[in-house]
Amino acid sequence: MERVYRLTISCPDRVGIVAKVGQFLSGHGGWIVEANHYSDLASGQFFMRHCIKADSLPLGLEQFKQEFAAIADAFDMQWDVKDSGEAKKVILMASRESHCLADLLHRWHSQELHCDIPCVISNHDTLRSMVEWHGIPFFHVPVDKSNKEEHFRRVSAIVDEHHADTIVLARYMQILPPDLCQRYAGQVINIHHSFLPSFVGAKPYHQAAERGVKLIGATCHYVTEELDAGPIIDQDVIRVSHKDTVEDMVRLGKDVEKMVLARGVRSHLEDRVLRHGNKTIVF
Amino acid sequence: MERVYRLTISCPDRVGIVAKVGQFLSGHGGWIVEANHYSDLASGQFFMRHCIKADSLPLGLEQFKQEFAAIADAFDMQWDVKDSGEAKKVILMASRESHCLADLLHRWHSQELHCDIPCVISNHDTLRSMVEWHGIPFFHVPVDKSNKEEHFRRVSAIVDEHHADTIVLARYMQILPPDLCQRYAGQVINIHHSFLPSFVGAKPYHQAAERGVKLIGATCHYVTEELDAGPIIDQDVIRVSHKDTVEDMVRLGKDVEKMVLARGVRSHLEDRVLRHGNKTIVF
Amino acid sequence: MERVYRLTISCPDRVGIVAKVGQFLSGHGGWIVEANHYSDLASGQFFMRHCIKADSLPLGLEQFKQEFAAIADAFDMQWDVKDSGEAKKVILMASRESHCLADLLHRWHSQELHCDIPCVISNHDTLRSMVEWHGIPFFHVPVDKSNKEEHFRRVSAIVDEHHADTIVLARYMQILPPDLCQRYAGQVINIHHSFLPSFVGAKPYHQAAERGVKLIGATCHYVTEELDAGPIIDQDVIRVSHKDTVEDMVRLGKDVEKMVLARGVRSHLEDRVLRHGNKTIVF
Amino acid sequence: MERVYRLTISCPDRVGIVAKVGQFLSGHGGWIVEANHYSDLASGQFFMRHCIKADSLPLGLEQFKQEFAAIADAFDMQWDVKDSGEAKKVILMASRESHCLADLLHRWHSQELHCDIPCVISNHDTLRSMVEWHGIPFFHVPVDKSNKEEHFRRVSAIVDEHHADTIVLARYMQILPPDLCQRYAGQVINIHHSFLPSFVGAKPYHQAAERGVKLIGATCHYVTEELDAGPIIDQDVIRVSHKDTVEDMVRLGKDVEKMVLARGVRSHLEDRVLRHGNKTIVF
Repeated sequence: MERVYRLTISCPDRVGIVAKVGQFLSGHGGWIVEANHYSDLASGQFFMRHCIKADSLPLGLEQFKQEFAAIADAFDMQWDVKDSGEAKKVILMASRESHCLADLLHRWHSQELHCDIPCVISNHDTLRSMVEWHGIPFFHVPVDKSNKEEHFRRVSAIVDEHHADTIVLARYMQILPPDLCQRYAGQVINIHHSFLPSFVGAKPYHQAAERGVKLIGATCHYVTEELDAGPIIDQDVIRVSHKDTVEDMVRLGKDVEKMVLARGVRSHLEDRVLRHGNKTIVF
Repeated sequence: MERVYRLTISCPDRVGIVAKVGQFLSGHGGWIVEANHYSDLASGQFFMRHCIKADSLPLGLEQFKQEFAAIADAFDMQWDVKDSGEAKKVILMASRESHCLADLLHRWHSQELHCDIPCVISNHDTLRSMVEWHGIPFFHVPVDKSNKEEHFRRVSAIVDEHHADTIVLARYMQILPPDLCQRYAGQVINIHHSFLPSFVGAKPYHQAAERGVKLIGATCHYVTEELDAGPIIDQDVIRVSHKDTVEDMVRLGKDVEKMVLARGVRSHLEDRVLRHGNKTIVF
Repeated sequence: MERVYRLTISCPDRVGIVAKVGQFLSGHGGWIVEANHYSDLASGQFFMRHCIKADSLPLGLEQFKQEFAAIADAFDMQWDVKDSGEAKKVILMASRESHCLADLLHRWHSQELHCDIPCVISNHDTLRSMVEWHGIPFFHVPVDKSNKEEHFRRVSAIVDEHHADTIVLARYMQILPPDLCQRYAGQVINIHHSFLPSFVGAKPYHQAAERGVKLIGATCHYVTEELDAGPIIDQDVIRVSHKDTVEDMVRLGKDVEKMVLARGVRSHLEDRVLRHGNKTIVF
Repeated sequence: MERVYRLTISCPDRVGIVAKVGQFLSGHGGWIVEANHYSDLASGQFFMRHCIKADSLPLGLEQFKQEFAAIADAFDMQWDVKDSGEAKKVILMASRESHCLADLLHRWHSQELHCDIPCVISNHDTLRSMVEWHGIPFFHVPVDKSNKEEHFRRVSAIVDEHHADTIVLARYMQILPPDLCQRYAGQVINIHHSFLPSFVGAKPYHQAAERGVKLIGATCHYVTEELDAGPIIDQDVIRVSHKDTVEDMVRLGKDVEKMVLARGVRSHLEDRVLRHGNKTIVF
């Protein structure tokens, strides 16, 4: 994959944004390989993402930022620009269930997911060997009712030590405390094993079996302080029938969970996800 | 389609049910063209549906019932047997939205749905011409806040006059009163324009847009006294994105609604749906 | 829906296209409500579609064309601009099967499809009443082995008389002669009842049943001289099993056919489909 | 999971089969936990699969076979009975691509797939470490144009030494010679990376991109002498668009391949797949 700069913009919609940004880029010889636009008519907000060949620009990332700042100010933009060559640092957190973790590790190992994984954190020691086979450090940080605060203090310390910019909760079954939700806002991705907003909280497959639904699902979302209520990145479902027990649903659901999580993480890593209130634009 | 008897059975599971029913059928020369079994391990209940070539049996429906009664008693069965040659009488109820009604009428008109439609009832006159083109009587029974009781008395009278055994709420936007829910229990099929249990009640697409879900859906279910909480027959979803406004969702959702309703109605007409508490077995 | 100009462009990719077009639009005060870009890296071709609020531009369509011509020339563009307020004229052609025709007529009648339907042409008289109920003229143009040339001469005359710009083959079971394929290139949309390129030609469901596939599908494509080989606009599939006979597949397939055709026609009507050799860009 | 006997039957359809089998089972106190029937009306063939609680039967597997033989003869049955407690021996074959192999190994390791995996065979040494981490022997059996015969002689020897009853080609990119296809008929499962019968043979994603299809797929099938033409067990598809390059299709397709292969293998391991000419019944 060619190295690109990924420019993402959100600003109040008005005439001339596209022209101005286009002029800026072409003025520097920037070759656009992908461009996405979205005008939210209801809110009047405009969203944009460009990928520009890094080699076509005579600007480094810092210089790009400095030069673009004037346009950004003029149009009141929230914006960012990333170099695809600088891999994000992603910490994976898991519990005892291996399917999401194994799936992400395999995608990383086979170079499908472009990121660094400085370490994996788990409240159980179960998955250590699997993680270490991949050459990734594994931190076992136990948790029980008595030491939650201590647990999250250690988690937070590990995240900071490794300069992680993304945390993926790959079926990590603990609820993040509000201060961590705020501190890492927009950086923590969770997979919930239901088609939200149905079946929030614990044991969603039991809830699904109880209700007799004919499809079960999974939801990948950014974590916010309200449980399972953060901005949704991706969702999917799979058909079930009366023949499927809760155990069958758990098994079938695993495939949906890992697929949806992998897609959501990939979109995040490629800077395709822009937040808009409690919703997402996924370019 | 060959004429068949459809025998449906639900009883406590134990050894010998299949053998006994099989012996009864083969003893009369009954040729089984379709057979479905389901043992619910959690509840210990057993469910069964057989289609037997009518011509292979020397028994009329009444005689079949008499002869089978002893087995049914011995195994404590809830059971029924229907002749596929006797079309169900289905009354369709609609409001102003035409997509579900038009879809069901077309399936009936092109002989895909095997039933009689003695009439269509609507609280608006909008769809009269479409219905009458199909040669089906149309009853306009207006409703407003002041005359709900009167409205449902007339609806109920029309249903009874026409000896309907099934009522399909094809986007009929009124809530059935509890007495009608009870009276026609297991006979009223509704299509709700969300993936239940998400977005119960009014304006589900607005709720979906508000929550930022990435899939929208529809649910076909039997009507019970609790709103949108009856046994689910079928569900499906369709992908949406940030680009889809509420209006887009309404439009996209129509296709899911009509497909799911048609599938649910078809299963019901073919006696494929067995109730199990608030859930369904759909053979 | 707000009236917009839809500008579609295809040209060799290079630096500055987006900027130039953006400048042109914003220079005239053009408010972009939707924009799509695609760079085909393999061929080096660039594709673009903009929707601009008609009211925001001081230019009529002709004036827009004149002013834009210089840019188009400079960048070697194939391009077009359409006014969403000018409905396309779409002639539907059918045979005896009603499902696709009924579906398109209903979408048009309920104002979901924005187009004019000057008439329906069929080689059978079967669907006349359905069409005429919609207030649309119906032309019965019979065909058999002896009069194919005469048949297509009459069809072509009707198309021309009604100034149709699009022809939709809604399960019209005749093969268009090469001269008509050429004459109306890019204007004739067909629905084929298989997941192309599998099962080209006659009786695809029989072929599917014979091969024992586990999914059946439908393909909406532009008609070219080579049978079922034109550029694909949309496709979809539905699951089948060993239980489904050819008749079941025909029935199940109808739902896929009508959905895929309706989606394809909608994309075409909204000028979302750009051709690229024998492939399509669908924005 | 409770231990069960799985009885599978295929025979000419006639009155009395279900009764006779039911009587046999209940006569021995057999508790049926799952039963599937299918009458193929076109060919007049009948198919059946029963799961009977092993503990409910006073018969061992051999005794069951002896006692059942008389019924089987009387009804001209092709039949088999398996003990779910006796795990199948499955040899996996792979090349350099890891996604299908890693997926199957993880499902086995997390006890989702109930089988023994005596070894993995590959024509490359690339995946050795991954396999050996799971505690499974890895055989590197190189192949090139000059030594195909020798290669397959060694493969065959390894299969026989390990008494394998199933061979899964998990993206093993070599074509099995006819004698092995015959010798292991019904025992070799392949995953082909297209929605067969489209895009048989090499580089199906290139073929798909060339044709401009809007969905790509994968097919799990039994291997026969004719390339990619054996009985299909399962298939699935995923949506692609003009934006997806061949490389994107390869990546997206991996997820479909591994899911479809895992489902097909699971069905095979649970004796759910009955062959009917070149088609399958999948109960």
